[in-house]
Amino acid sequence: MKFNVSSNDLNQGLSAVIGAVPTKATLPILETILFESEDGRLKLTATDLEISIIEYIDADIEEEGSVAIPAKRLQETLRQLPNIPVFFEVDEDQNVEFKTDKGKYKLVGEEADEFPEIPNMDGGTNLSTDTKLLQNAIGKTMFAVSTDDLRPAMMGVYFDIGENETKFVATDGHRLVKYVNQNFTSETPLSFIVPDKALSLISKALDDDSTDLIVSDDHAQFKSGSTIVITRLINEQYPNYESVIPRDNDKNLLIDKNQMLATVRRVSVFSSSTTRQIRLQLKNDKITIRAEDLDMSSEAKETISCEYSFDEMEIGFNAKYLGDVLSNVDGDEAKFEFSTPNRAGIVKPAEEEEGEQMLMLVMPVMLNSYA
Amino acid sequence: MKFNVSSNDLNQGLSAVIGAVPTKATLPILETILFESEDGRLKLTATDLEISIIEYIDADIEEEGSVAIPAKRLQETLRQLPNIPVFFEVDEDQNVEFKTDKGKYKLVGEEADEFPEIPNMDGGTNLSTDTKLLQNAIGKTMFAVSTDDLRPAMMGVYFDIGENETKFVATDGHRLVKYVNQNFTSETPLSFIVPDKALSLISKALDDDSTDLIVSDDHAQFKSGSTIVITRLINEQYPNYESVIPRDNDKNLLIDKNQMLATVRRVSVFSSSTTRQIRLQLKNDKITIRAEDLDMSSEAKETISCEYSFDEMEIGFNAKYLGDVLSNVDGDEAKFEFSTPNRAGIVKPAEEEEGEQMLMLVMPVMLNSYA
Repeated sequence: MKFNVSSNDLNQGLSAVIGAVPTKATLPILETILFESEDGRLKLTATDLEISIIEYIDADIEEEGSVAIPAKRLQETLRQLPNIPVFFEVDEDQNVEFKTDKGKYKLVGEEADEFPEIPNMDGGTNLSTDTKLLQNAIGKTMFAVSTDDLRPAMMGVYFDIGENETKFVATDGHRLVKYVNQNFTSETPLSFIVPDKALSLISKALDDDSTDLIVSDDHAQFKSGSTIVITRLINEQYPNYESVIPRDNDKNLLIDKNQMLATVRRVSVFSSSTTRQIRLQLKNDKITIRAEDLDMSSEAKETISCEYSFDEMEIGFNAKYLGDVLSNVDGDEAKFEFSTPNRAGIVKPAEEEEGEQMLMLVMPVMLNSYA
Repeated sequence: MKFNVSSNDLNQGLSAVIGAVPTKATLPILETILFESEDGRLKLTATDLEISIIEYIDADIEEEGSVAIPAKRLQETLRQLPNIPVFFEVDEDQNVEFKTDKGKYKLVGEEADEFPEIPNMDGGTNLSTDTKLLQNAIGKTMFAVSTDDLRPAMMGVYFDIGENETKFVATDGHRLVKYVNQNFTSETPLSFIVPDKALSLISKALDDDSTDLIVSDDHAQFKSGSTIVITRLINEQYPNYESVIPRDNDKNLLIDKNQMLATVRRVSVFSSSTTRQIRLQLKNDKITIRAEDLDMSSEAKETISCEYSFDEMEIGFNAKYLGDVLSNVDGDEAKFEFSTPNRAGIVKPAEEEEGEQMLMLVMPVMLNSYA
């Protein structure tokens, strides 16, 4: 195999796929990137067996072929180069030599046959969507994904693509986020769970305005521009999340998001470091947030104004979960919907773009009787 | 004790001293900051028993007193506040309550008497210098300080202040840096070793144009503006470093620093990960840098041009140490001085400011005979 490539193009290609190279690989071949000539271009592939990334780059192919090259060493060398042409030559024993006008470098590759097979997506369902929409949906939901191995279904974002809208859902049992977008639909409804790690790689890798999806039983492929990300799906039943969203929320509250977030953060410093519990007391257009840490004999109390004209109510939350949810509210104002202190609180942005609905939910914590 | 203070002033004061608060304290009192009223100002003190930092801030003292307040909890709360007045009130049982127009916070302090005593610097030698000069000297030397507990004398920068010049020296046995400045002198010559951790705190904390030093047998105090840093000195004999600097260096080499640094970094990727050994071959205005990693069957070679008209020579270095030294050369050109392959290489900037001399030294490594 022989080819000429610009160091910039190759650097960009390596950066695009390197996210799939595992930091601690069980198989040494996973630490390599597969180089293949294909239709006059260079195809780079990296995989950790769960997620594969493929990137096509321009190159002048002098002799067709393929080889798997150690990823880290190659990337470290190229990163230090200015933008100059690099000539690669690979012999029958997978010895890789590359030359620039600065110097000559040799390393040993692996046979392309050793490289794991990338899932074949033929026969899957084809869909197409706007890349920004997808990145936005991933950004809004990923924070709530569970890290609990015992509930594998919740370790990813649930894509529920219907005829009229798509629901993106994530929950870890403490908070839940449901983002609905009417600009992404499918004639054949389908649903699947994309694992956490793949989501951030997909969000970063997609580099064109639109993204083509192919979804099979076990895998989903996202293709945008010269980049393809293929991920294994979480083959589990997603929990019936709609049942935990309370329906009759008669107590509404409208509040400045940033002010409330700053208050939650300040007051939570004084909460118990194990429970992170804070108390919200709602009364006559005022909200009072308190925390106590009995071990440290410390406490804090702040009152901020809001729009609230319903019955007085006190509800407890984990400050971290409430803060996470608040910081994911778009715009300046947040709308809370409460029913009773033992039912989840719902948080929404006060204003929404047309065709979008965002709903977040935080589970309350039982208040101690120390008050 | 009662006082009013602006949250900004207090935040800045806390940031100035917090560097001395140990992250894992053996004594809980070290996790506090001592608040004292002094001459109508607020004096904040933090210490880890080795290094103490004192900062004076403006405050409206309503009632004199002192208390030690948990550092982290206080800083975390204040950091989230906009710039507003904060009123502090401390009762006899060290209960600290502070109020803003946003809310009320309570925590428990410790008795000021429990706080460790800060070294008394009376009777020490007084000196004064330019703060920038001191920060510059620390910045140029700190990288070469040893982290080896078995050689405590080398775990700091050696200050050798004489009648005509001051030498700042650091070495870890692999490389050495000697920075001489003629604008800092003392009528009574004195020398001492400042530990590594104190150097970075001093460099950050000093905030006025000039710095006053007081040096006693065991401690040095650096005072600049409203900040005082007191550090314990390393009570050891500094090694006779002059003896390792080779005198008869007949082979001089002049080279573009950035080009050589990039080459060293690229080529070193192909060196053995245990030895990091690279070879420099000097010949007729050319330098060829090579690395080999026999375990990985990889190698690299680059040739760059330089000014060199002496006998051909080959010398080996640890790529990391050579890179560190090169990146600390001021200006675009570096001057190397060599004698033989088994003696240290000297590196200097090609041009220097008047009254300053910088000399760095890298120990060579024995070359294997694999060549």
